[in-house]
Amino acid sequence: MRVAILAHEKFPDRAKTAVGICRYGEQDVVAVLDRDRAGDRVADHVPDVQDAPIVESMADAPACDALVIGIAPIGGDFDPSWRSDVRTALERGCDVLAGLHYPLAEDEEFVTLAAEHDCELRDVREPPDDLDVSRGTAGDVDAHVIATVGTDCSTGKLTTTLELVDALRAEGLDAAAVPTGQTGILIEGWGIAVDRAISDYAAGAAERLVENAAAEHDVLVVEGQGSILHPAYSGVTASLLHGAMPDALVLCHEAGREAIHGYEAFAIPPASEVASRYEQFVEPVAPAAVVAGALNTSRIEGEDEAQRAVEEFGAAIDAPATDPVRFEASEVVDGLVPEDEEAAQSGRSGGPEP
Amino acid sequence: MRVAILAHEKFPDRAKTAVGICRYGEQDVVAVLDRDRAGDRVADHVPDVQDAPIVESMADAPACDALVIGIAPIGGDFDPSWRSDVRTALERGCDVLAGLHYPLAEDEEFVTLAAEHDCELRDVREPPDDLDVSRGTAGDVDAHVIATVGTDCSTGKLTTTLELVDALRAEGLDAAAVPTGQTGILIEGWGIAVDRAISDYAAGAAERLVENAAAEHDVLVVEGQGSILHPAYSGVTASLLHGAMPDALVLCHEAGREAIHGYEAFAIPPASEVASRYEQFVEPVAPAAVVAGALNTSRIEGEDEAQRAVEEFGAAIDAPATDPVRFEASEVVDGLVPEDEEAAQSGRSGGPEP
Repeated sequence: MRVAILAHEKFPDRAKTAVGICRYGEQDVVAVLDRDRAGDRVADHVPDVQDAPIVESMADAPACDALVIGIAPIGGDFDPSWRSDVRTALERGCDVLAGLHYPLAEDEEFVTLAAEHDCELRDVREPPDDLDVSRGTAGDVDAHVIATVGTDCSTGKLTTTLELVDALRAEGLDAAAVPTGQTGILIEGWGIAVDRAISDYAAGAAERLVENAAAEHDVLVVEGQGSILHPAYSGVTASLLHGAMPDALVLCHEAGREAIHGYEAFAIPPASEVASRYEQFVEPVAPAAVVAGALNTSRIEGEDEAQRAVEEFGAAIDAPATDPVRFEASEVVDGLVPEDEEAAQSGRSGGPEP
Repeated sequence: MRVAILAHEKFPDRAKTAVGICRYGEQDVVAVLDRDRAGDRVADHVPDVQDAPIVESMADAPACDALVIGIAPIGGDFDPSWRSDVRTALERGCDVLAGLHYPLAEDEEFVTLAAEHDCELRDVREPPDDLDVSRGTAGDVDAHVIATVGTDCSTGKLTTTLELVDALRAEGLDAAAVPTGQTGILIEGWGIAVDRAISDYAAGAAERLVENAAAEHDVLVVEGQGSILHPAYSGVTASLLHGAMPDALVLCHEAGREAIHGYEAFAIPPASEVASRYEQFVEPVAPAAVVAGALNTSRIEGEDEAQRAVEEFGAAIDAPATDPVRFEASEVVDGLVPEDEEAAQSGRSGGPEP
């Protein structure tokens, strides 16, 4: 899919979704829309990602299939200055994808234009309306399923997921990310925001994602949500884990964080204890061990100190650890997929197409 | 509130909600509608519950404030033969409460009549539309909070909740049930169906229920949902426990059940292990112990055998146990509320009104 990405006035530092698509996305990025940087290229600002021209508006973008809203203002509102770009996209027959609180599909002008030009408005926060309860079958899929889990929200689960997929692919494995939140969905172009599903159906949403992805790929990395320790979001985490039934867990933590963000009365226990709690939680439904750790060391200045923090984290959870952004995800990739499965799956993905 | 309860052709054996209201409800039951038993009285069929006349139709019911749909056909549909009763209720200015899948509030005729007669159509499965994320504050309430939890769905959590409230009240405590599912809501006349909340808001729903009830009562018994071991519903259970932050847990189990109902590949671990798993799960957010057990022995024929099963269950979880229907909930009530709190709360509820 060829996409243009709207990131007005915010590329690259305040455009997490736009940068994420350039870095990790399957999409072919034809342009980034940022009126403040029109004439530059993505590569002028972000190295090592897919390059593309930065343009003033949708009217200047090359032919493409979709416009993605790649920024989210505080509150998730739709900025009126984006309206002409969305209008132009629809008039050119492009779908428009967004993860805002403001539902594009309830905007009369956009709905009319989309109908006229036979294109789609996709609000990726909205889960599909045919979700159902989990059948408890994700454990039977013909793929090795890894899930990222966290000591808290915003500990790097999405980034770790995407970095691990890249590292697994570099090993020759047919790996894919399973996006479970709006940013991951926009980056990968599919997925379900599990936290927006009706509570009874949240595990069913995770199950559906895993079963669909397992039909296409050999190794899955499921993007985790929340934390099993979180006073507000543990239910999302529980549904995701029991619905997805991973074979292995990767624990994500931010160095130095000692309490649940925004819920400071709730301490984060030592990493070793958090790892055990995850293993205990999944055990009656689908046993899985924490096989690797990802530590976000972005608040640690010195490289040596960051390296030491990663080593301590790995020792605490008794598994290989890395900071997949500062260092390399490949450092933990060896233990992620059991060797016999790796051989079988390399063989399978290298075999003739069915 | 004075209510009439619709239970056509199903009272009492297939009218769980209707019988529940007669047995446990705060409402004043003025009539049960069952065209097959018109002329009888409730007491002719169910001993030891609130008595009321059984009538042919809403036209024959005494003055009241609401009509409650007290039966649910398989599939949760609205039976067309009930339409005239609902119409009559609305024309008489009565609210209509239902927990069906068919939303009364989307039925044009009923909506029009409700508006004309200034009364309310309440579909209790629909959560309020202003739910939000939990703030993590339910642990601060000025009440002792007990939650029923289960080894599985349908193990007697609602019945145990209501029986415990009765037993606590018999001890002189100001106790109240906190209903979290449709049947409990219809019986008690308030509550939120937590399993229908958006996953992100489910803990917030539990928190709101506990905080509201704690403002009115000294001891709360929160109706549990699902099971922490359930492949499909564990997220609901997790949200409920972390949102409600109970001080104590009562474990409910059905004697002889060895696997999750409908998910037979998933074994139910021994009761002692399930109790530990609940305690481990709540510990980082709001520590609580399993202080009592409720065993549903309805499939055991002999009284002696049932008594033995209850004793074994209690020994396994190392806490007093009973079958609150076959035997007495009062047998486990002593350990539910710590003695110092009991004294303080009896004092408080006996004090002058604020």
